[in-house]
Amino acid sequence: MLESRNPDFAETIRESFGRQSFMATLGAKITSVEPGMVRIEYGRGEGLLQQHGFIHAGVGTSILDSACGYAALSLAPAGADVLTAEFKVNFLRPAKGERFIAVGRVLKAGKMLTVCEGELWADEESLIAKMQATMSIMVR
Amino acid sequence: MLESRNPDFAETIRESFGRQSFMATLGAKITSVEPGMVRIEYGRGEGLLQQHGFIHAGVGTSILDSACGYAALSLAPAGADVLTAEFKVNFLRPAKGERFIAVGRVLKAGKMLTVCEGELWADEESLIAKMQATMSIMVR
Amino acid sequence: MLESRNPDFAETIRESFGRQSFMATLGAKITSVEPGMVRIEYGRGEGLLQQHGFIHAGVGTSILDSACGYAALSLAPAGADVLTAEFKVNFLRPAKGERFIAVGRVLKAGKMLTVCEGELWADEESLIAKMQATMSIMVR
Amino acid sequence: MLESRNPDFAETIRESFGRQSFMATLGAKITSVEPGMVRIEYGRGEGLLQQHGFIHAGVGTSILDSACGYAALSLAPAGADVLTAEFKVNFLRPAKGERFIAVGRVLKAGKMLTVCEGELWADEESLIAKMQATMSIMVR
Repeated sequence: MLESRNPDFAETIRESFGRQSFMATLGAKITSVEPGMVRIEYGRGEGLLQQHGFIHAGVGTSILDSACGYAALSLAPAGADVLTAEFKVNFLRPAKGERFIAVGRVLKAGKMLTVCEGELWADEESLIAKMQATMSIMVR
Repeated sequence: MLESRNPDFAETIRESFGRQSFMATLGAKITSVEPGMVRIEYGRGEGLLQQHGFIHAGVGTSILDSACGYAALSLAPAGADVLTAEFKVNFLRPAKGERFIAVGRVLKAGKMLTVCEGELWADEESLIAKMQATMSIMVR
Repeated sequence: MLESRNPDFAETIRESFGRQSFMATLGAKITSVEPGMVRIEYGRGEGLLQQHGFIHAGVGTSILDSACGYAALSLAPAGADVLTAEFKVNFLRPAKGERFIAVGRVLKAGKMLTVCEGELWADEESLIAKMQATMSIMVR
Repeated sequence: MLESRNPDFAETIRESFGRQSFMATLGAKITSVEPGMVRIEYGRGEGLLQQHGFIHAGVGTSILDSACGYAALSLAPAGADVLTAEFKVNFLRPAKGERFIAVGRVLKAGKMLTVCEGELWADEESLIAKMQATMSIMVR
């Protein structure tokens, strides 16, 4: 398992997540925080749909982005901040299902840039999207 | 100017956009539809923020995705559907501002794949994000 | 293990790889072909360098692209062809080392699009780049 | 036109390009260097092909990467170095043609990260690939 340089990383992340009003709008809850790995879950909501009644691709993308960002933050020094520099997502299957799990994992933690990958699972059995993301680490 | 193969493309797109409940949740309005180009606008909303009070990166990404998808649809045959295969976004500046404009444009329209680029502008003067997207064209 | 729909996939791939003169220019050899996974190896060559004497980022990218493309081909029907639609690569560490291994794996095989990921390893111990790629499947 | 912070940027770039042995292997020549924009040209070479006799996607990608990297360097302070953090390329059309032109342009120059886009043209008339790239600026 990776080691965090911030003893309070889990608390820092949960507190920061609580301030993201957009995650509340999406009905997303953070369900696991470990060094280098963060899991966020959400369900199908009536205000999250695209034209055919599936969940809009942007919903899972937004939650994967938060999961990757917090995975990066979990390995950053205390007081650091994380900003998304860029990401790329492939959509593998339609977002059918009731419960969705976004898992962000650190591939390489650096001083200024941390690279993460994110997986989006439907009902714990079907991989519906895959993200590769670059996070900027801002040390105050 | 590019030419559409669907005489009703503008109506088709506006009607489809109206069915995307997620765009309503984000407060997004479609403001321009031309062959190969779609513009969507939105404002700062209290439910759209990340932990520092800026608009969450996922909001602009979701709206850029819709703008690129509908730009692709504007050049597709009547009855076709568009699904996002993948996209990549770079975030160039923090999403400061009151009004945001997402512009999706077709780079290359194909039979099965259409490649688009999207630009996100704050207050019409500052480019804050750039997307490159691949859309799958599904002909029924 | 995934199953191929083409009984001669390994032979087809090795024969096709042999026709890629660019792979010969890069000194690349295909060392493993399985359903959904292809491995290509190469070494440091004097004609492959960037300005600081490291291997140019484009070399590993080109070889990852071939590894991902052939991984996609290994799961395609006999007679199909594969074309790169797009890819994204993150460079995690400088390309130090003597031997490099590119591994392409299928994440999701589709009728028209197959999504792959590629890993580039230096001296079998250090992950130096990660690719996410979309391949178009052309059935003749 | 953008302004460079390094009065010798053009000389620095041409000299650095001359040390990239991989560009010589690809037969690439730098033909234009301006603040925020670099152009590199190359032709069809027998050692650059994929299995169907087209130029391998990795060739144009490698040259776009160099064009984007040097575009970023043209706006960096004297003594700075540029490393590719990541890029994404879409391939729009097969690489048919005799002469190819890669143009790298800066979208946003930053202290630590510079975002570029690259266009690959065949015979000056057909856009065959589009890149979006993130460059790390290393100040010594």
